Amino acid sequence: MSAVQTVTLDGPFAMQRGALQSPTFAYETWGELNAAKDNCVLIFTGLSPSAHAASSPADPSAGWWEDMVGPGKPIDSNRYYVVCVNSLGSCFGTTGPASVDPTTNELYRLTFPVLTVEDVANSAAYVLNHIGVSQLHTVIGSSMGGMTALAFCLTQPGRSRRLVSISSAARSLPFSIALRSLQREMIRKDSDWQQGNYKIPGNGPIQGMRFARKLGMITYRSAAEWAERFGRERTTDTLEPDNPFGMDFEVESYLESHANRFIGTFDPNCYLYLSRAMDLFDAADHGGSLEASFTSLQLEAALIIGVETDFLFPVSQQEELALALDEAIPEVTFKRLASIQGHDSFLVDMDRFRPAVAEFF
Amino acid sequence: MSAVQTVTLDGPFAMQRGALQSPTFAYETWGELNAAKDNCVLIFTGLSPSAHAASSPADPSAGWWEDMVGPGKPIDSNRYYVVCVNSLGSCFGTTGPASVDPTTNELYRLTFPVLTVEDVANSAAYVLNHIGVSQLHTVIGSSMGGMTALAFCLTQPGRSRRLVSISSAARSLPFSIALRSLQREMIRKDSDWQQGNYKIPGNGPIQGMRFARKLGMITYRSAAEWAERFGRERTTDTLEPDNPFGMDFEVESYLESHANRFIGTFDPNCYLYLSRAMDLFDAADHGGSLEASFTSLQLEAALIIGVETDFLFPVSQQEELALALDEAIPEVTFKRLASIQGHDSFLVDMDRFRPAVAEFF
Repeated sequence: MSAVQTVTLDGPFAMQRGALQSPTFAYETWGELNAAKDNCVLIFTGLSPSAHAASSPADPSAGWWEDMVGPGKPIDSNRYYVVCVNSLGSCFGTTGPASVDPTTNELYRLTFPVLTVEDVANSAAYVLNHIGVSQLHTVIGSSMGGMTALAFCLTQPGRSRRLVSISSAARSLPFSIALRSLQREMIRKDSDWQQGNYKIPGNGPIQGMRFARKLGMITYRSAAEWAERFGRERTTDTLEPDNPFGMDFEVESYLESHANRFIGTFDPNCYLYLSRAMDLFDAADHGGSLEASFTSLQLEAALIIGVETDFLFPVSQQEELALALDEAIPEVTFKRLASIQGHDSFLVDMDRFRPAVAEFF
Repeated sequence: MSAVQTVTLDGPFAMQRGALQSPTFAYETWGELNAAKDNCVLIFTGLSPSAHAASSPADPSAGWWEDMVGPGKPIDSNRYYVVCVNSLGSCFGTTGPASVDPTTNELYRLTFPVLTVEDVANSAAYVLNHIGVSQLHTVIGSSMGGMTALAFCLTQPGRSRRLVSISSAARSLPFSIALRSLQREMIRKDSDWQQGNYKIPGNGPIQGMRFARKLGMITYRSAAEWAERFGRERTTDTLEPDNPFGMDFEVESYLESHANRFIGTFDPNCYLYLSRAMDLFDAADHGGSLEASFTSLQLEAALIIGVETDFLFPVSQQEELALALDEAIPEVTFKRLASIQGHDSFLVDMDRFRPAVAEFF
């Protein structure tokens, strides 16, 4: 069962560096729009999740933010009409590089225009138009989704009254750019990538994707958590007994099994486009500096959350964002959480994140 | 010109997990052994450097620790007889996987026994015997070299009076194991690795080595330094103009040029063996716990230095080492430096490191 709904645009969709003909946008919803139409909460995802943030009668499987969204949850579907969109450029119902270009009847692959976070933000506006929402109660996003939520507020001032940005940043810095650049190179240099022309559906650059995912998983957590979790435990079943460089430590076997689960569920070209979009994002592009860009914001309040052990999106970047927002909008709350799970904390340290988000709503 | 000297063992060399027949050990020296033979300082290197720590009349080219070793430098060759060894398993004169096995007249390649940090430490004893040094003034090492220096003190108690360990650790933790495991996998999965049987001399797994080096470089520095150094600068000459995923940011171009310099200078199989040796190291193996292992130490003093921005060998690991040593030996100094260059600080932040080391000597 799937709760995914779609809307297909009747006409061209302008992107910052190109255009798409009649793209489709996928989304899921929880709760009901009230009579005043002022209770809609829009969720943007990180790089890889689908629109399935939480279970619902139409799809009882657990979503990627199951503990955060639903009846009586911090983003309470008894009170709010919650919408989560699959990002433009992704591969879970929304048009992306793995979709058919209706003007050629071929897959887009690398003919897909360079994607920006602003394009992802703008695409959500069509979903909101389609479901009859002119103004949002809140736009919320974590990781890449936090960038998209901020871009939404910058490109469509006034369309949301409130912003929540979690473990995100106002711009990408060279450390995370370097890591993502290496991840993309690992995919592109896999000969099975075939310059983006691998068979779809099919295997494609499996080894490159495995490397990219493993590196991602290493950077999404923290050294402290892994020390606590794995220590120096050895695997009970050494996977390559005759190989002096085979997997031996528990942490190696953990990475291998999780990376293998990711492969096949996410299209490599989509991964490349979304990853690059994060590098390109700089909120200061909207005005010359963060402060100048933020003068156009018509937000009433913002909540910025960061995690001390996040080294991919360091808490100093959330603090920078909160300080710049504080010059521009009436009410800014900055929360620095002591979670030890690094960048991924918003997915797992629910005991800290649930109250932090619930308080804002 | 080369200042490298070698000694070849006349007989077998026992390793923890195997043995070598008549291995050769390469080393360089600075200064003179005094009459009392009590002024020798032994340096162990990190994973990749050669024994050429500093210039000398025999080899005026700059060494990898040029600012630290030499006449009037913190490790003063006017006062000390300084010896730096090329690690067992490496490829700069000392026997390693890229050397010929005299029992078969073939290259060792993967027939080289699994290497441990203790093996590297023990190999240095033969160099010391050869040059007539029975007791060291100090053994010093940074990064992997700090592990080796500690292993030397554990396996040969009393042979050094003092220990200096810089940006190192008493054991490898899962975060750094995961990173090194991924680096090794990137080399092993390169089809040009050919199960270790690539042509020597030749190209071998160039792409895998490029990935491994780039990942290494990312983890050797800190996000703060790179933000300061590169910001969001774009390259002046985009290297792949038609490629939407080509290098664009200055940091990407920096990694590419530095990784290319590394390739060809370091043997891939040697890299695999030395990298794995770091994972395997745990000083607690010598007694069941750090504290129990350290009871056998016969050190008079130790200096432990860590850097706050090092996330590969976090400063908490140096603190753990210093605290455990403090229970076992008379004088332990722990210095926490505020360098922003991360793990590599000991190579570049000489304004902080020179006085910290000089004070100890």
